[in-house]
Amino acid sequence: MEKKTCSKKCSKDCTKKNVYFFGGGKADGDGSMKNLLGGKGANLAEMAGHPKLKIPVPAGFTITTDVCTAYYENAGKYPNGLREEVQKDLKKVEEVMGKKFDDSQNPLLVSVRSGARQSMPGMMETVLNVGLTTDTIKGVIQKSGSERFAYDAYRRLITMYSDVVMEKASGKEPVEGKGIRQQLEKLLSAKKEEKGVELDTELDAADLKDLCEKYKMKVKEVLGKDFPDDAYEQLWGGIGAVFSSWNGKRAISYRRIENIPGEWGTAVNVQAMVFGNMGDNSATGVAFTRNPGNGDNNFYGEYLINAQGEDVVAGTRTPAPINKNSQSEHNKHELMLSDFIPAVYEQLDEIQQRLENHYRDMQDLEFTIEDGKLFLLQTRVGKRNGPAAVKMAVDMLEEKLITAKEAVMRVKPSQLDELLHPIIDPSAEKTNKPLGKGLPAGPGGAIGRVVFDSASSVEWEKKGEDVILVREETNPEDVEGMRASRAILTTRGGMTSHAALVARGWGKCCVVGCGELEIDYKKKVAEIGGVSLAEGDWITLNGTKGLIFKGKLPMIDATKENKTLNAFLKICDSIRKMKIRTNADTPEDAKRARDFGAEGIGLFRTEHMFYGVGAEKPLFKLRKMILSDTTQARKVALEELFPYVKSDVKGTLEAMEGLPVTIRLLDPPLHEFVPHQKDQLEELAKSLDIEMSDLEKRVSLLKESNPMMGHRGVRLGVTYPEITEMQVRAILEATAELIGENKKVLPEIMIPVVGMEKEIENQKAIIEKVKAEVLKKYDLKKLPLMIGTMIEIPRAALTANKIAEETEFFSFGTNDLTQMSYGFSRDDMGSFLSPYLDKDILPRDPFQTLDTEGVGQLITVAIERGRATRPKLKIGICGEHGGDPDSISFCSKAGMDYVSCSPFRVPIARLATAQAVINEE
Amino acid sequence: MEKKTCSKKCSKDCTKKNVYFFGGGKADGDGSMKNLLGGKGANLAEMAGHPKLKIPVPAGFTITTDVCTAYYENAGKYPNGLREEVQKDLKKVEEVMGKKFDDSQNPLLVSVRSGARQSMPGMMETVLNVGLTTDTIKGVIQKSGSERFAYDAYRRLITMYSDVVMEKASGKEPVEGKGIRQQLEKLLSAKKEEKGVELDTELDAADLKDLCEKYKMKVKEVLGKDFPDDAYEQLWGGIGAVFSSWNGKRAISYRRIENIPGEWGTAVNVQAMVFGNMGDNSATGVAFTRNPGNGDNNFYGEYLINAQGEDVVAGTRTPAPINKNSQSEHNKHELMLSDFIPAVYEQLDEIQQRLENHYRDMQDLEFTIEDGKLFLLQTRVGKRNGPAAVKMAVDMLEEKLITAKEAVMRVKPSQLDELLHPIIDPSAEKTNKPLGKGLPAGPGGAIGRVVFDSASSVEWEKKGEDVILVREETNPEDVEGMRASRAILTTRGGMTSHAALVARGWGKCCVVGCGELEIDYKKKVAEIGGVSLAEGDWITLNGTKGLIFKGKLPMIDATKENKTLNAFLKICDSIRKMKIRTNADTPEDAKRARDFGAEGIGLFRTEHMFYGVGAEKPLFKLRKMILSDTTQARKVALEELFPYVKSDVKGTLEAMEGLPVTIRLLDPPLHEFVPHQKDQLEELAKSLDIEMSDLEKRVSLLKESNPMMGHRGVRLGVTYPEITEMQVRAILEATAELIGENKKVLPEIMIPVVGMEKEIENQKAIIEKVKAEVLKKYDLKKLPLMIGTMIEIPRAALTANKIAEETEFFSFGTNDLTQMSYGFSRDDMGSFLSPYLDKDILPRDPFQTLDTEGVGQLITVAIERGRATRPKLKIGICGEHGGDPDSISFCSKAGMDYVSCSPFRVPIARLATAQAVINEE
Repeated sequence: MEKKTCSKKCSKDCTKKNVYFFGGGKADGDGSMKNLLGGKGANLAEMAGHPKLKIPVPAGFTITTDVCTAYYENAGKYPNGLREEVQKDLKKVEEVMGKKFDDSQNPLLVSVRSGARQSMPGMMETVLNVGLTTDTIKGVIQKSGSERFAYDAYRRLITMYSDVVMEKASGKEPVEGKGIRQQLEKLLSAKKEEKGVELDTELDAADLKDLCEKYKMKVKEVLGKDFPDDAYEQLWGGIGAVFSSWNGKRAISYRRIENIPGEWGTAVNVQAMVFGNMGDNSATGVAFTRNPGNGDNNFYGEYLINAQGEDVVAGTRTPAPINKNSQSEHNKHELMLSDFIPAVYEQLDEIQQRLENHYRDMQDLEFTIEDGKLFLLQTRVGKRNGPAAVKMAVDMLEEKLITAKEAVMRVKPSQLDELLHPIIDPSAEKTNKPLGKGLPAGPGGAIGRVVFDSASSVEWEKKGEDVILVREETNPEDVEGMRASRAILTTRGGMTSHAALVARGWGKCCVVGCGELEIDYKKKVAEIGGVSLAEGDWITLNGTKGLIFKGKLPMIDATKENKTLNAFLKICDSIRKMKIRTNADTPEDAKRARDFGAEGIGLFRTEHMFYGVGAEKPLFKLRKMILSDTTQARKVALEELFPYVKSDVKGTLEAMEGLPVTIRLLDPPLHEFVPHQKDQLEELAKSLDIEMSDLEKRVSLLKESNPMMGHRGVRLGVTYPEITEMQVRAILEATAELIGENKKVLPEIMIPVVGMEKEIENQKAIIEKVKAEVLKKYDLKKLPLMIGTMIEIPRAALTANKIAEETEFFSFGTNDLTQMSYGFSRDDMGSFLSPYLDKDILPRDPFQTLDTEGVGQLITVAIERGRATRPKLKIGICGEHGGDPDSISFCSKAGMDYVSCSPFRVPIARLATAQAVINEE
Repeated sequence: MEKKTCSKKCSKDCTKKNVYFFGGGKADGDGSMKNLLGGKGANLAEMAGHPKLKIPVPAGFTITTDVCTAYYENAGKYPNGLREEVQKDLKKVEEVMGKKFDDSQNPLLVSVRSGARQSMPGMMETVLNVGLTTDTIKGVIQKSGSERFAYDAYRRLITMYSDVVMEKASGKEPVEGKGIRQQLEKLLSAKKEEKGVELDTELDAADLKDLCEKYKMKVKEVLGKDFPDDAYEQLWGGIGAVFSSWNGKRAISYRRIENIPGEWGTAVNVQAMVFGNMGDNSATGVAFTRNPGNGDNNFYGEYLINAQGEDVVAGTRTPAPINKNSQSEHNKHELMLSDFIPAVYEQLDEIQQRLENHYRDMQDLEFTIEDGKLFLLQTRVGKRNGPAAVKMAVDMLEEKLITAKEAVMRVKPSQLDELLHPIIDPSAEKTNKPLGKGLPAGPGGAIGRVVFDSASSVEWEKKGEDVILVREETNPEDVEGMRASRAILTTRGGMTSHAALVARGWGKCCVVGCGELEIDYKKKVAEIGGVSLAEGDWITLNGTKGLIFKGKLPMIDATKENKTLNAFLKICDSIRKMKIRTNADTPEDAKRARDFGAEGIGLFRTEHMFYGVGAEKPLFKLRKMILSDTTQARKVALEELFPYVKSDVKGTLEAMEGLPVTIRLLDPPLHEFVPHQKDQLEELAKSLDIEMSDLEKRVSLLKESNPMMGHRGVRLGVTYPEITEMQVRAILEATAELIGENKKVLPEIMIPVVGMEKEIENQKAIIEKVKAEVLKKYDLKKLPLMIGTMIEIPRAALTANKIAEETEFFSFGTNDLTQMSYGFSRDDMGSFLSPYLDKDILPRDPFQTLDTEGVGQLITVAIERGRATRPKLKIGICGEHGGDPDSISFCSKAGMDYVSCSPFRVPIARLATAQAVINEE
């Protein structure tokens, strides 16, 4: 029963046509017909048939995806007339290629390949060299002049065909390791052993001929059937095998993950084989229309004479450069294609220009020269690294090849990381197994020698050594050592631990919470994944992924080239709508972020000054404040603390002159600041004039079972109003003084951990009181000040209508919001995150990329209700997600006014916000 | 400007009438007119004027609340004609009372009192004895025959009037302690000192007369005005003062808390004074139409001859019983009213019957006999204790005085606690200041001697001592000592701590997390609130409120009388719609809960078997399982654990035969079960055959920063599928065996801490696998089994539509849902809960009563979305809120099918669910 209507959504009338020819400057289809012809088929048709292209591709034809659908609907029966259509197009292929299928004189061999609407790399089957039989092999030997070539091709056909068609497609599930392919490979190994050689290429024609006989006997023995010696049987066997591989196990599970509907089906591409290994006038290669390593607008590629495509990739022979621009240290002595066959090179060069102009993007080409004749096997958008992507985008816009919006879409936000931090060479990373994994707390890569304490770090660094500080966890006393080190690695703590916060502030590579790592401080040695690391051993960290490697991996550093990046980011700025702010805690951070393009500070953490360099003094005073047990004593300590806070705030406001600065009131549970060392505790007891035992009692009273949900944020401000008061006074006096210096400053006070509107009422009363006092003190009529809140507690999101009555802005603290929504403690989820990701229970770490389905609901509800109460409510995000491109896209759709992220992610956010605008169009 | 329309919502046409008379068997208004006449005025009108009542009340009139509103709208000006209306009604009062206002022969004195729509006790002002002047006092002396009586009344008038009218209502805010009332009281004290007496009553007529002169001089001196010697000026001054007290500070703040609109206004009641202290033929008393202490249907009351109402309350004289039924040990020698003036007693008895029949509830009466004439001053619904409330409800239904629904509404759910646990005598609690406060973990009261360790508890109890075990926290090793003690008190831990769980299971009084208490185990002494408690000292605990008292407070024990309670609960059952289940963890708990009326188990915590008595063995095996570091070792330990779990489940299913039992899979973070003592750790290391240092490493790996949001619940089941498998096998084998014994059992497996539907998919796969194995093993075709989930993670509530695809029931775990929604750790919130409640930021502890505004949204959203996916989804609650009446009311409205609570709260839930039905009608 033939299908009456087409189930695909292309515009063509294709209900009657099942097979689409391409080749010889003609094609039945074109590049727009991906749904019907699959990606590969449509692309081949485009190359072959588009009037401006007419690229020499090996001729062939595509059996449509509709046939695949019909095949499954009709229990493996093909539509009527399919055989005739295939026969007809095969004729055309013969004509174009000047060869004949199933011919003993001048035989045409074909490949049979899958090709779905969306690429499913490696998930379906391919059979090459179809059409080789005991009869046609004679013609191949004669035409190629090489018996070895012919039997090598035959051997490959038998292997692929018996595996793909005779075994897999027939539904035979071989025992693990007992598949026909493995059994044939054993014969090959045996033959090599017998001949005392190592490489397949060392086997001669006789060896291969003998192997082909043995292969066929083994096939018969294992599968109970003869390997077909009929070219047409091979062809139809191949076609059927590709169709049935659409419903193979791997393909089905891939589709499930990628959400590809089973009804789409695959097309089958039957294409004439061409051989780059047919002699010394043949070659094969890959090329890029621009340099994918740096973006330069030069034709770039490599090739091998008398070789097959897989040889270029395999690396057993060093490929030669196609032209001068492609020369490197490794290959500069090899013969360039432009010298080897200049005419073919020129043809190729002309073709690549046409392809890039046609596709309006850098193309990755595969070509084969068969006996002096050029064929293009594939063209596709070429992969490129970050710096190249940026340069190409900027160049192509300048060349008017693409629009500004297209330029913006040409760079993945994650690629910008490569321009902002040195990174490990990705190819080196592929071949090195990491020792272990922690949380990616500070992006980029770093190499250094292991040290286990801060003093050694400082000492070694002075001697000119690159060191990596490895600690169980860090605290403010480690800051000098952290600064001296290239990177920081800890065994405990999460993305908001001391180490993570400090490292991110500095843009330093950092991996935290690597639980597998065990440190023995006494012995100055650590163990991870069964490997022992002594002081002075080299390690390499990938802080973007949280990986730890042994030894020194090669690095790539593109952070110097910033002109192109700036040009690119300006393009982004011209398109984006959301503002970009930064999370910065010091005047230095603020300046750096401003250089990166930040338009304000979205999160200034007052407590952070106690983590940084030179923090000892204010930290000591903070500790005194925390451990005071009367309001009076606390007020005295707060007074001592006041000048530090004020000066920090003032410096930051000044650095951000003219831009808004959101200052969050004290957030973390107080116990976090209490020292652990005995000598420090003793100093504190002395300063507080109390017994050590009393101090210890106070310290233990501050301990909490679940500090994340404990006495923190606004709860501190409510129970100790004097703490809020001190902070507000510092902020407003700093503001008043800057106004006195004729500076435009825009402070915004943000109240954290709010769950109820009454908490804000309570704090606002304090703020208003202090404001009145400061106005009086500085004899001012008004002070610029906005008051807002973090939305990080689910209840706050749900009652945002009420919260908005009291606040002028919302800033989503998506770290905590994610913690509370999932009930996941970020510091503890290490124990189950991996299994959750492995078992596909979590699609990804919700602390990296916002969970739009669950947490996202709270965000949209809060925005909707908040704006219902206060239409002009300013809304942003200041959680880590503010620097994550996918999350930024959600924030944009949700209607936020700005995102705020760490300084080094500001460029990424500038790009992501621009892409969000384009994606929403 | 007179008001044209009435702002009140009564049905009467009252736009023109401002003053409503009552008395002498007539009344202009009636009991339905509370909005216009206020509660007191309407009630007096009802008593005086209702055809079936016509009770002798002192005549008077009510100035409407509309006048109050007009008064405020017109800047203190009264409506036109008000004075005339007052005058007219004052005439009527004179007629009824046979006295004349402002008359020197036979003067009428009046009281001026407030009376709002809703009672605002003590928030507004009252002036008594209005109309006493230098002129009318003569008449009073003559009529009463007592100069002392007259000057005493005059003294009181001057005090009240100068305070209420001349000072407060005139807007004078006296310095603290310098108010006119205090200054006058100083004169009184001086006079008593001068006379060498202690009591006011010891002053004679001359003293009082002298005092009155001094009072008037002081008033003039302090307030700069003469005390008015004009009866009408006094009357209008009093009326104005009552109106202005409506907007007094106290009244405004009370209205804000109670949500009473300011527009309601107050009425003013002007009523003839009658005096029970006018001689030996006068008396005053209070009475109840039934015994408020036990509910017996006997007229019950006390009175004093020649006394004023306040004397009965003050307790300086022992009141006499009104009749035989009112006799007690204390008063049985006093003259009964029925003997004192039999005719008046009979009149009173007849009146009380009429009043109870009319109001259809037990009435609390105030009466005065002035010179042999009976007046009722007030009737209102009488307060009663729990046992009395239950008895009256059951009796009155039987007497057909009320309907079943009314009976149900007559008992407050909290009152049932008094019938289920011994409690501290509330009157004793009022006069004793607690030493400190902890969390109310096990309801009821208990008295005992302090012991600080489990062994002493057991030892002392054997000697017949009542002990209370006081510990920092408890663990399974303390169980014997806990059992031996009357109550448990801990310094650490929350409502879900070991102590709290065990105590609630046993229905034992328990207070946990009392942070103020500091224990010194070595010295066997504890300190709290500056008081030292040594071993053996007596303390009293209120486990319902979390209070600790020094010494032995008197107790009330009504737990024996259960017949009436059962009858009452049957009435509730006939009305309620929601099912009641219980949270029970052992077969014993299950049986007890069934006796209390539970219709199933809503929460069986598999882990709880490790907390109970005799838990040492399974606990040890659980610890082995937890500290295994390979799947293999864990499986071995699980196999050892299996028989314990199975037997516990089997016993419980059996005890609940025919009723559903929801069994929750392992929930708490594993670290919770790890022992703290070294010897126990050593034993474990030995049993696991590992070094102590290795064990310590494993223990430390299990530690979490925020265990509440850590590796627990379904997360354990996903990472260690073998744990789920063991539990499911235990449940299903127990089920299969009981089916084999022809028992109908209905197990429901509940998966805890779910946030994503995929977690359930994962666990269901395990359940289905085990189920198939069990079916095979027992040769069964099917097993009854429902699979559901806790909804306790906000994300689960938000994605309930998806969660419901995988589950047959939801059970709201509102403890965790509240924790996550607020970001409150229940174990830590002690540090800020009190200030939050004190500052009115939290209206009440959200762990006691569900936060319907925030957490409630998640519940309603989850129910709505869950049922959208699966209309027959069974929905219940198993958090602590399931036993809280207000929360139950919310659950009912939200459409839940059942509530589940601890066994001792099942009766309370039966009542609360019935009341929910009635309230929703």
